Amino acid sequence: MSTNWSLFTIDKKAYTRILHELRANRCDQPLQCLQPMADSPAAQHSPAGLPWYVAGSQLLGLTCVVITGVWMGHYRGGYAWDGSSQEFNVHPLCMVLGLVFLYGDAILMYRVFRSESKRSIKILHAALHFIALIISVVGFVAVFDFHAKAKIPDMYSLHSWCGMLTFVLFCTQWLMGLSFFLFPGVSPWLRSRYLSLHVFFGLALLALAVATCLLGITEKLLFSITSTYSRFEPEGVLANTLGLLLVGFGVLVGYILTREEFRRPPHPEEEALSMHFKTLTEGESSPSSP
Amino acid sequence: MSTNWSLFTIDKKAYTRILHELRANRCDQPLQCLQPMADSPAAQHSPAGLPWYVAGSQLLGLTCVVITGVWMGHYRGGYAWDGSSQEFNVHPLCMVLGLVFLYGDAILMYRVFRSESKRSIKILHAALHFIALIISVVGFVAVFDFHAKAKIPDMYSLHSWCGMLTFVLFCTQWLMGLSFFLFPGVSPWLRSRYLSLHVFFGLALLALAVATCLLGITEKLLFSITSTYSRFEPEGVLANTLGLLLVGFGVLVGYILTREEFRRPPHPEEEALSMHFKTLTEGESSPSSP
Repeated sequence: MSTNWSLFTIDKKAYTRILHELRANRCDQPLQCLQPMADSPAAQHSPAGLPWYVAGSQLLGLTCVVITGVWMGHYRGGYAWDGSSQEFNVHPLCMVLGLVFLYGDAILMYRVFRSESKRSIKILHAALHFIALIISVVGFVAVFDFHAKAKIPDMYSLHSWCGMLTFVLFCTQWLMGLSFFLFPGVSPWLRSRYLSLHVFFGLALLALAVATCLLGITEKLLFSITSTYSRFEPEGVLANTLGLLLVGFGVLVGYILTREEFRRPPHPEEEALSMHFKTLTEGESSPSSP
Repeated sequence: MSTNWSLFTIDKKAYTRILHELRANRCDQPLQCLQPMADSPAAQHSPAGLPWYVAGSQLLGLTCVVITGVWMGHYRGGYAWDGSSQEFNVHPLCMVLGLVFLYGDAILMYRVFRSESKRSIKILHAALHFIALIISVVGFVAVFDFHAKAKIPDMYSLHSWCGMLTFVLFCTQWLMGLSFFLFPGVSPWLRSRYLSLHVFFGLALLALAVATCLLGITEKLLFSITSTYSRFEPEGVLANTLGLLLVGFGVLVGYILTREEFRRPPHPEEEALSMHFKTLTEGESSPSSP
């Protein structure tokens, strides 16, 4: 079949829209997709299924936070800030709340808020990540403080190695995101080049944070209920269930983020068209917004 | 800016190629991408960087297998098949070799073999996964056999819950892949609909397999070197390092799989064009080949 290249005399704005429509896979016959979007405010609405997936993720995430709170509050003696094991109990709660639930929610902002300006969502995304960062710092202080008072060595376990790695990479990712996407002066080309890395490592870090939580659950159970864990005591079953729910939350956030049909549609008025075009053509790991 | 839709009288084959070129992001000026690909055998060659990433993944994966072998062989008394703790030692080696290294390599087949027929790669992908499955079954038998002889309860820990979940989902994923992609009679539309799920859950399962290995490492260390782990004994440091290398392997395989520019280019002669077109327009989670 010969190819007549001279037919491709299209303008970029039209091409951007077509590419988005085709990749969003809104119809079965691709050439039927070539309908103008400008008169269709429905494009800004949530795609079918998205609200349910988001609701499911929130239910899972909140359940994880509540179970962690109940585990530490009911089975492990509650909370305090006095260097005791009750101060340690602040650590799991902060990590699940900050580095998993809020971190995951910050990722979802671009899928949930579809008609707000991109800059507003960027600020919301960065702010939620910042709150997650502060909460996780409190969680870190709690465990180091407890270790210092109880004369327990720091940073020897795989859990601590993975946790520190996650935290350092999270700080790096946050600072890089701030520098590239919120400070002016970075070229659109550079932004679009970095965006795919930002998205990939954002999701990889969520996976690492969840894995670190699973390690923490296992450590805590083996230290606290060594002799009764194998008898399916309620505390062990509850903590294991928490582990599976954390995995479920991570998988669901990853699913929502990587579905093409859930991606926020481009808002042509927000940025220079060239930026949109470049970003759209970057493929799978470079959505038009993170 | 007005949009002249009447300009889009293009044939599907040309469109398929353009979409692939644009999404592979081979040039900075999108409209310069519209060059015929037929005369360019280079399209089948490995993209810049890919061989290095693949080599890095193999180095990481093999190092993980070797370290596991050394850990169990040197520090934990070697291997046997007699229900003793030496039979248990077969378990970590099989799991790292099967459910992580070979599983990851099976994923990479579509990126490594770029000019072979798609059917050949499908068979290779399924065969490698099958070998991984057999090896992991041996690993499962080893641990259940050891537990039975030593009268240790089964399936009470988070590690065992995550491991069983990974194994069951892996079997399901393998059978679904076989049914959808290797047995004839499944419509191209149905295949392309399932492909994005197959790719997403394939990567999610690799992440879960790595997380399960980290849990296994933590359990084994806390059972075996409880009192000396916190003194940074060589065995503990080696096993922690193994954990980080497993994370590195998983992240690298995920990176190679999700880079648009590393995706295998479509081979127009292999399938009906409509299938290609549909698949290409599915966006990020539906590559033209898994």
